[in-house]
Amino acid sequence: MVILLASSDSRTLRSIGERKAIDIILSALTACDEPIAVGPGDDCAAVKIGKDYLLITTDMITQKRHFPPEISPYQMGWHVVAISLSDLAAKGARPLGVVVAAGVPEDYNVRFLKELVKGMNKCATKHGTAIIGGDMKSHDHLTLTSTAIGKVPQKDFMSRLGARPGDIIGITGALGRAGAAYYALKNDLVKKFKGVATGLFEPMPRLNEGSALAKSGVVSSSMDISDGLANSLYQLSSLTKLSFDVVFDNIPLDPNATKLAEKLDMPIEDLTIYFGGDYELLVTVTSKGWDKAADAVKKAGGQLTQVGFVTGKRRMNLIKDGTKSHLENRGYEHFKWED
Amino acid sequence: MVILLASSDSRTLRSIGERKAIDIILSALTACDEPIAVGPGDDCAAVKIGKDYLLITTDMITQKRHFPPEISPYQMGWHVVAISLSDLAAKGARPLGVVVAAGVPEDYNVRFLKELVKGMNKCATKHGTAIIGGDMKSHDHLTLTSTAIGKVPQKDFMSRLGARPGDIIGITGALGRAGAAYYALKNDLVKKFKGVATGLFEPMPRLNEGSALAKSGVVSSSMDISDGLANSLYQLSSLTKLSFDVVFDNIPLDPNATKLAEKLDMPIEDLTIYFGGDYELLVTVTSKGWDKAADAVKKAGGQLTQVGFVTGKRRMNLIKDGTKSHLENRGYEHFKWED
Repeated sequence: MVILLASSDSRTLRSIGERKAIDIILSALTACDEPIAVGPGDDCAAVKIGKDYLLITTDMITQKRHFPPEISPYQMGWHVVAISLSDLAAKGARPLGVVVAAGVPEDYNVRFLKELVKGMNKCATKHGTAIIGGDMKSHDHLTLTSTAIGKVPQKDFMSRLGARPGDIIGITGALGRAGAAYYALKNDLVKKFKGVATGLFEPMPRLNEGSALAKSGVVSSSMDISDGLANSLYQLSSLTKLSFDVVFDNIPLDPNATKLAEKLDMPIEDLTIYFGGDYELLVTVTSKGWDKAADAVKKAGGQLTQVGFVTGKRRMNLIKDGTKSHLENRGYEHFKWED
Repeated sequence: MVILLASSDSRTLRSIGERKAIDIILSALTACDEPIAVGPGDDCAAVKIGKDYLLITTDMITQKRHFPPEISPYQMGWHVVAISLSDLAAKGARPLGVVVAAGVPEDYNVRFLKELVKGMNKCATKHGTAIIGGDMKSHDHLTLTSTAIGKVPQKDFMSRLGARPGDIIGITGALGRAGAAYYALKNDLVKKFKGVATGLFEPMPRLNEGSALAKSGVVSSSMDISDGLANSLYQLSSLTKLSFDVVFDNIPLDPNATKLAEKLDMPIEDLTIYFGGDYELLVTVTSKGWDKAADAVKKAGGQLTQVGFVTGKRRMNLIKDGTKSHLENRGYEHFKWED
């Protein structure tokens, strides 16, 4: 048995976990005079510029902790740009540009660097933007920080805060691609599930869907589900004091996730709602406005599915096969990852 | 003797150096449809928004390679924010906000995190802006990426490209604070030169000076001298095909740098013009406009000093004690740093 006798300040970050560390950061920050709509603690920060919000979001990724050995340099480049663009998508914004700061080991070769940048560039240009700047430093471990800026008319901006009881929960796309990839890699099943890794390595930021949802005017709140659906709903719940009922049977599932869960005898929930990395959008929509929202996403080339509803209760529920159980608060928590 | 037999793509980044690596990156990038004024390769990227340029700049710093053990967590936080703000200053921009992505070892404690964030916050608020967002991840080595956004009226934007023969070279402040700190630390002389380390650890971004210079309308080009005066002039030279004569005797020198150079029997140039980290601004100004520029900086609370002139020749000169010698191209090159 270990007894910890430490003053509160000498606790390690490992012992307090990521969320608490973020709370500590937030409490040390001062707001400024600029008209800021959303400060630290959201997908993006937002600054008013004329009738628009200028949005900015930054993400750091390290090869060692976030990428398995099977990922290519091209895919690493794609990935880090995609996750920043996904944060813009959650706000309904259009990207203005991406900058990437890269810490690269000196013994990496030119081929690696070229492929890495090719992946970044492709992800940016594919989504109507570009890598407009960056920084490169020597580093012991490959470390990539992608920062994306974008803009959205103030009236279209989708916050995390507007959900009301009775609103419908919608998600874009299907869940489970990232989970399927992770468990296929872990169990050496990548060859059996061709292309399975792409879902984890090359996520598609839902910029068109986000923009369409923002313009529809019927979305009450929005975020991306990079941390998994369950964890994301808990984040919304902690902000709004509302609860959410998830109807699992309605969630579009990635076919590989279904097959893998069966093969590995795992609960399908663990590959889908309790697993991060799918980078779909999670929105709440007024029940009256649902058809308009779904239609807008369809016209943008995507798909929006009803997967539950907002409640005023104090309980997060998961409804599966007609049975109601407790929706658990599980997902990514980086400081608690095993190496 | 070592003979390298490698195809061009398997060369390591160490062997090609930072500048070549950046060239490789630039050649792999595609421009986008957004109206971009300055893409990768400058202090900041610039995107047109209405009558303004929106500027963005990103910098990655690692504790191991960029900070000596003597720096405090507060100073690390200050430093990383200051260097990004300095890039905005070089363009004449006002900051809109700063985001910081931090990779932090899990065994660092809460006190460290609090102090780190306090330093970031102080540097931002001191310069009229704020930390508006960020990211935190677990990392083996403390790694900080600061990204600043700012804006400047298009007509005031200072590029790196406009110098003409006959223009005057101006710098803000004095040179040698960072060099003095570095050599004092290296030679265990910090106690003898009280406060010497602050110049290296807590640089002051010249935002007021930059803004005043931009509005003066007489600046033909501008950059910050984070890499040292000599190296920065070589960067301008390679962009403009012009040359520069530096009159060393005119350069305001930090008193500690002068004393340390004497004590350590080092050429004073090595602590001042061949040493990075001073974060002053380097501008070229039309000879007719000099007084206006100097006046504007004075009114902004700073000082602008003539330290040379732009020439059309093919030789970079250093004039010291009335003697002309070759200005060397020395300064920071991160991939060639010794550990």
